[in-house]
Amino acid sequence: MQQHAIPPLRPPDTALLAALRERLGEAAVLTGRDTDGYCEDWRGLYHGRAMAVVRPADTEAVADAVRLCVQHRVAIVPQGGNTSMVGGASPHEDGSEIVLSLSRLTRVRGIDAIDMTLSVEAGVTLKAAQDAAREAGCLLPLSISAEGSAQIGGVLATNAGGNNTVRYGNARELVLGIEAVLPNGSVLSGMRRLRKDNTGYALRHLLVGSEGTLGIITAAVLQLAPRPHSLEVALCGVASPEAALALFTEFRRRDPSAIQAYEFMSGTGMALVTGLIEGASLPLEGTAPHYVLVELASGRESAGLRELLEEVLAQALEDGSVLDAVVAESGVQRAAIWRLREEHSEAQKRAGASVKNDVSVPVSRVPELIARATEACAALMPGIRIAPFGHLGDGNIHFNLVQPEAMPREVFLARDHEIMDTVGAVVRALDGSFSAEHGVGRLKPYMMPDWRGGAELDTMRRIKQALDPLGLFNPGKLLP
Amino acid sequence: MQQHAIPPLRPPDTALLAALRERLGEAAVLTGRDTDGYCEDWRGLYHGRAMAVVRPADTEAVADAVRLCVQHRVAIVPQGGNTSMVGGASPHEDGSEIVLSLSRLTRVRGIDAIDMTLSVEAGVTLKAAQDAAREAGCLLPLSISAEGSAQIGGVLATNAGGNNTVRYGNARELVLGIEAVLPNGSVLSGMRRLRKDNTGYALRHLLVGSEGTLGIITAAVLQLAPRPHSLEVALCGVASPEAALALFTEFRRRDPSAIQAYEFMSGTGMALVTGLIEGASLPLEGTAPHYVLVELASGRESAGLRELLEEVLAQALEDGSVLDAVVAESGVQRAAIWRLREEHSEAQKRAGASVKNDVSVPVSRVPELIARATEACAALMPGIRIAPFGHLGDGNIHFNLVQPEAMPREVFLARDHEIMDTVGAVVRALDGSFSAEHGVGRLKPYMMPDWRGGAELDTMRRIKQALDPLGLFNPGKLLP
Repeated sequence: MQQHAIPPLRPPDTALLAALRERLGEAAVLTGRDTDGYCEDWRGLYHGRAMAVVRPADTEAVADAVRLCVQHRVAIVPQGGNTSMVGGASPHEDGSEIVLSLSRLTRVRGIDAIDMTLSVEAGVTLKAAQDAAREAGCLLPLSISAEGSAQIGGVLATNAGGNNTVRYGNARELVLGIEAVLPNGSVLSGMRRLRKDNTGYALRHLLVGSEGTLGIITAAVLQLAPRPHSLEVALCGVASPEAALALFTEFRRRDPSAIQAYEFMSGTGMALVTGLIEGASLPLEGTAPHYVLVELASGRESAGLRELLEEVLAQALEDGSVLDAVVAESGVQRAAIWRLREEHSEAQKRAGASVKNDVSVPVSRVPELIARATEACAALMPGIRIAPFGHLGDGNIHFNLVQPEAMPREVFLARDHEIMDTVGAVVRALDGSFSAEHGVGRLKPYMMPDWRGGAELDTMRRIKQALDPLGLFNPGKLLP
Repeated sequence: MQQHAIPPLRPPDTALLAALRERLGEAAVLTGRDTDGYCEDWRGLYHGRAMAVVRPADTEAVADAVRLCVQHRVAIVPQGGNTSMVGGASPHEDGSEIVLSLSRLTRVRGIDAIDMTLSVEAGVTLKAAQDAAREAGCLLPLSISAEGSAQIGGVLATNAGGNNTVRYGNARELVLGIEAVLPNGSVLSGMRRLRKDNTGYALRHLLVGSEGTLGIITAAVLQLAPRPHSLEVALCGVASPEAALALFTEFRRRDPSAIQAYEFMSGTGMALVTGLIEGASLPLEGTAPHYVLVELASGRESAGLRELLEEVLAQALEDGSVLDAVVAESGVQRAAIWRLREEHSEAQKRAGASVKNDVSVPVSRVPELIARATEACAALMPGIRIAPFGHLGDGNIHFNLVQPEAMPREVFLARDHEIMDTVGAVVRALDGSFSAEHGVGRLKPYMMPDWRGGAELDTMRRIKQALDPLGLFNPGKLLP
């Protein structure tokens, strides 16, 4: 982690703060110590300072706040649950920016069980949105670790991914309609509930994933799915990433619509989980070089998923591609298996400092990614603990590296960019992406010219300039 | 159909034509009578005239042609298979524009059966792309009537829909990567094969559906699907659109992932098909007020689809929501049932002049759309034949009106906008769209201010201005 000098604090724009208080009410404008919780990011990478945290109560108040900030030429950092992995919602250290929190926009505006649509405001947590869908007998098919805190606005602004992309796509694929406040203070009202609508540019897709640099999402219409009626989970020990991929393609060949999650875990990562997380234990006979978690689901009550699972695993055990496997017999066992996957981040945290690489490659190239990046990192730093895990089914691997046991934390972290670049070089050679699901945020804009330069970056800059000519929406994020 | 005066022909830019011939070769630049086939649109709505039709051989040649046209300030109309329903690929009548045909970009650049991706150039027909996918054991899950002529570039530029959107989404949902020539002559190279990639604005989604006004798509990476291994088709007579919707929700409740198509047809439309199309006959005991075609499919070989279909239909026959039903026993019978649906356009053409409304509403509101629009049109013009049909499963109904039998064609067509506005008013009241899958093209930009005005249209105009400041890419299309 490189150290940054803390810049001097700029004086607040007291006229703006007074105008904001007058328009939105005293309680909606926080300053001083009250802003601390909004200024430090979740990963502890950035310790920003904000002129104020503004908490409008509804879309119109968001637009009011934006118009006032624009009048005063003060930049705005939109913030949802503040769970960005890349500092996407952190203000600058110089206190020149306003944090605009969407956390008071918490209305579920509507839900339609026939259309299977959920109209929801930006400040609703993903968990609360999932609950609202469930109460209507539907499923909001998006699940990420931070779902208890992450809010819909941020989930969409960053196009969150998660465990079920293999079946349902990313957040983007669920968005039918959108409402957003634009940098000129106007409200884009596109809360449509249509599956098909070819009337002009796909503005919702431009806003989704734009990380608050083009507009502040205030509400959205999400496409829900029917709730699965049968579910099976298995954990398998496999000899190699190639075997993990072969098992995936076999499941897909047998029933492509059944795969709800297909997660890869390294032996190193699993050892950290079982060694450092209380109550986490491996439900297999012994350890394996790598592991796979497969979850099958169907909307049918008698879909024969168990038979399918057992047939495929029996065959794989026989041909040796799977070394050992266990199928969950109950909800408790399913949860125990999932816990082994979900505790990977926590276990790595306990094992010391780590460098995270949220990368993706074409699904077919995951084994090559793991082999080549493992070799390169081991050569770069002997003793480094190589613990890749993640969504093999959609090509997104969290290629995380944990510090060597004996190395001082600071010595390791001083080389973080070197490690990222080592993994990055492999990913580039495989036509992959340096950010599969976390976004660019404040951490990675410097990578954009190399990876997305030329006409792509030029086009992004033209769009940014066209919609936010003053550059007041989340400056320093996404674009270099 | 309103008559337009034909504007005088502008003199060609001979210097540009010479430069194009020099750069691209003589054979790549057509003028005079050779351009006729490219200038008349498929529906016969527009009879444009082009300064020339330019047919570059590859992406670099497209970029060359664009740069030359920009130097000479000559506008470009990109054209694929020229099957637009809204004049999206027709040049202006004054001969001031170049038609840029992508039909020579016909390479399948690559196909990967593990990733299930197809990299294909813009001039490949949808049919040829489907065939390439099939040869690799996969399915390109996009099917439209014009697939034999429509080319991938146009299919993506218009975000084509079709019969399988209910299961696989529109063309947009299949695009992983894209390559396009931008209005400044640069090549946007984004031919990535990634399921997850959160590195900046979703430029591919901006280009898809932009109807050639922001860039000329030259190639794309499409996500394929596994081929279904079992398939069932049934035709049902139903008493009402409500019954048709109830049957859809019942199928979805029983197995949401099985529904591959769910098509609605009016009794009026079906009578035109069976009366006017040779060999088309109804495989039911008698006629019904409305009809539904349901197609179920699964990637599993023994998915129990027949049992599911028969169970749901037996229950629906018993409770009276379905009046009569037939399940196809063979591929020949499946094709015969599908033919009843696919011949709707042809039958309506034979029945006289018609006004087409490619509209969508939330799925739950389709019955209300049909009831209200039927009532309004019947009141507007007694004797008008009301023949809605289309994709009930995704809310997209082709609300087509055929002229009264006794009325002269011209008298009917003189009222086309009145009829469209009548349907449009109902669609608007139901929060729908005036163009579900055909796009805006040249026919409907006038509707944009009313339907997508305010911040939406303003944002679209800003983007257009940012990427195409000279307004040379497909002028007069999409934006008013």
